[in-house]
Amino acid sequence: MPGDYQISLSPDELPRKWYNIIPDLPEPLPPPIGEKQLAQLPKMMIKTCLGQEFSTERWIDIPDGVLELFERAGRPRPLFRAKALEKLLGTPAKMYYKGEFYSPTGSHKVNTALAQAYYAKQEGFERLTTETGAGQWGTALSYAASMVGLKCTVYWVRAVYRWKESRRNFMNLYGSEVFASPSPKTKVGKALFDKNPDHPGSLSIAISEGLEDAEGDPKAVYSLGSVLNHVIMHQSVIGLETQKQFEKAGDYPDVVISCLGGGSNFGGFAMPFMGDVLTKGKKIKFIAAQSQAAPNLQGEYKYDYADHGELTPQLKMYTLGHQTDFPPVKGDGLRYHGCSPIISLLRHLGYIDTVAYPKDEKYVFDAAEVFVRTEGFLPAPESAYSIAAAIDEANRCKQTGEKKVIAFNISGHGFMDMVGYDEVLHLTERTPIKEKVVAGG
Amino acid sequence: MPGDYQISLSPDELPRKWYNIIPDLPEPLPPPIGEKQLAQLPKMMIKTCLGQEFSTERWIDIPDGVLELFERAGRPRPLFRAKALEKLLGTPAKMYYKGEFYSPTGSHKVNTALAQAYYAKQEGFERLTTETGAGQWGTALSYAASMVGLKCTVYWVRAVYRWKESRRNFMNLYGSEVFASPSPKTKVGKALFDKNPDHPGSLSIAISEGLEDAEGDPKAVYSLGSVLNHVIMHQSVIGLETQKQFEKAGDYPDVVISCLGGGSNFGGFAMPFMGDVLTKGKKIKFIAAQSQAAPNLQGEYKYDYADHGELTPQLKMYTLGHQTDFPPVKGDGLRYHGCSPIISLLRHLGYIDTVAYPKDEKYVFDAAEVFVRTEGFLPAPESAYSIAAAIDEANRCKQTGEKKVIAFNISGHGFMDMVGYDEVLHLTERTPIKEKVVAGG
Repeated sequence: MPGDYQISLSPDELPRKWYNIIPDLPEPLPPPIGEKQLAQLPKMMIKTCLGQEFSTERWIDIPDGVLELFERAGRPRPLFRAKALEKLLGTPAKMYYKGEFYSPTGSHKVNTALAQAYYAKQEGFERLTTETGAGQWGTALSYAASMVGLKCTVYWVRAVYRWKESRRNFMNLYGSEVFASPSPKTKVGKALFDKNPDHPGSLSIAISEGLEDAEGDPKAVYSLGSVLNHVIMHQSVIGLETQKQFEKAGDYPDVVISCLGGGSNFGGFAMPFMGDVLTKGKKIKFIAAQSQAAPNLQGEYKYDYADHGELTPQLKMYTLGHQTDFPPVKGDGLRYHGCSPIISLLRHLGYIDTVAYPKDEKYVFDAAEVFVRTEGFLPAPESAYSIAAAIDEANRCKQTGEKKVIAFNISGHGFMDMVGYDEVLHLTERTPIKEKVVAGG
Repeated sequence: MPGDYQISLSPDELPRKWYNIIPDLPEPLPPPIGEKQLAQLPKMMIKTCLGQEFSTERWIDIPDGVLELFERAGRPRPLFRAKALEKLLGTPAKMYYKGEFYSPTGSHKVNTALAQAYYAKQEGFERLTTETGAGQWGTALSYAASMVGLKCTVYWVRAVYRWKESRRNFMNLYGSEVFASPSPKTKVGKALFDKNPDHPGSLSIAISEGLEDAEGDPKAVYSLGSVLNHVIMHQSVIGLETQKQFEKAGDYPDVVISCLGGGSNFGGFAMPFMGDVLTKGKKIKFIAAQSQAAPNLQGEYKYDYADHGELTPQLKMYTLGHQTDFPPVKGDGLRYHGCSPIISLLRHLGYIDTVAYPKDEKYVFDAAEVFVRTEGFLPAPESAYSIAAAIDEANRCKQTGEKKVIAFNISGHGFMDMVGYDEVLHLTERTPIKEKVVAGG
């Protein structure tokens, strides 16, 4: 039957409002602190985003201009039923996955990138600055800047910058400037770069560089791709679409799973469902899939900075420490010291479970391979963590016989991450006849 | 207004029948010739496909099992209105592009791959063999084989095999065996390989290898991704969807453009519209965009083999000669000596215009960059030719003031082709600060 495998929405079914969970939280969200840094916020941030950051309105209109950008980016995105995966696992569970991998740049990050670029343009800025870890956010903002007609400067964690040449070229193609971080372009970066020009960098260092760059240029504004409340809210379009799709499918999830670094993907997918739990008495198990390289939800719930250079206010969040070094992983989008204050509070109050997978990543890439061979779509390394957690849950259902409905988000595609797949799964060694590998043939 | 930028279809709007243009052709299609080779066909080909190859039925039912596979692959795919590109060009033309780039493997090739894999499985085969040039067809068949539970062996033109490591690993991930061609695995290949183990290969050599491999194994069957009538017919799902989308948009194309190598993409997109011209009196200008590296539509219209080793029957087609060597281009899917007999006949009768772009590919990659910066989606190198032709046509409209409706197909995405983009556009040189490029950081 048509619709058995893919639940689609048309552009006129795009959500018209974002969901802001703040007024529905069981406890007030602890505010950010730090007098000096808070005073800087109006200079550092896009004004509309700053307003949204502290808004207590439950529903916030998506401007027509942003809806237009969402449609151009291919939204709404389909929800797929993973029947082939279910069959292979022999699980009584029903598994559904959201297709954020249709994103023009490869991940869910475009959702907030488009909103932020739109507002920045409206406010008269000419350039966006930002940081990126896995590269997904940098590409998304490069794309969004190009769509609305802004320049864009990206500070990219050096450890990742070096091996993701294709993604770097992709950002260049959109017209962005891309620097390896720490870079000699900023004071924060130069201090570290001068000591070690090979410094692998970290997301929190790169954030400091992006902030400092924008601070020194009145035509530029900094844009953050995760953690903050307004980012989670912009991303709620994912979960809101998914809710409409479940309604069409005549189903409702018992388990909602996604990978979590700073929280934008997990938050965007899960918060609308969390709203159902908090206001409509629904019962859902939420699972945040993380890497043991940076399992921030297993850290301490306390005030900490969002960046290495302490330019941001302190946020009450689960954190592993804002100057901690983390080992590189292919799912680099999950390698960040802190978690969104909203999600941290909900975790603190027991609404969210968490799992952290080993940092050699064999387990999650094996899960991704099973997904590729059954469902056919190629997930981003970060999304492999969602898949691993969904398969674990489906296997638990097999043991207990529970017919749970499992919803998970494939936050991005892996077309530009085959080097990572190869390093973990040794795909090249599966090639039967060895060949010289030479560029240009 | 919703739908201004994206015209979507839901799974229940998927076409239920393929369009076979053969009965509507203005002249009978010249049959294939070669007694020995024709006698081999029933042993070489999937039976259902062989039947479809010679069918004179106008509409052929798409089996439910294939419709299911199409839906799992994300069909139907959206049609986008390129308003930002139109605005940049300042053209009075309306430009629409079909989003085949949403394909799980990256191109339109999945459409016939899924159909062929489905029929092969039904007929009891256990393994598919094939060739690939750009790598798109090999990936598509690897995917399709994995979806229906078949093994798959791919002979890949060595010149491309060597630089597209990610795509090779992608095929490995689906479980395929992949050999650089000419390979020592077959007689045809070994003869060339022994003389020169670095032989760059060609599509027609790789076809010979795929055919020979299947011939030697009763459980295996060969699958071809282009040229043949049944392939063009399977691909008609693209144009049929697009027709429904134009109906929804209240518009109809004056110009239909797509890139053309063997003809599967051009044929799949254009033949349903050609049907309107042949049977409903519609007037449409058709443009096939090619590379000067292998402009087969500028060759001779005559009988020729589809492969280097002369294992196939001879087909009446435009050809540059089945043993000709062509210079490598990034749009490698366009590098083939012959063009589909159906399209060749229509070209011969004056229904199709053709343009061939310079083989340094600067012109088409520049067009792709303009597309990326305005529309945001990253096209495959082959699709860059479609874009260049669409932009050329839109610029002609600017000169004449004509408000033509231009439809073009983005047959695939370029996420795995950034090396090609870089080589032509020198993207790496746009990086402001040079960095050592080291794998693994």
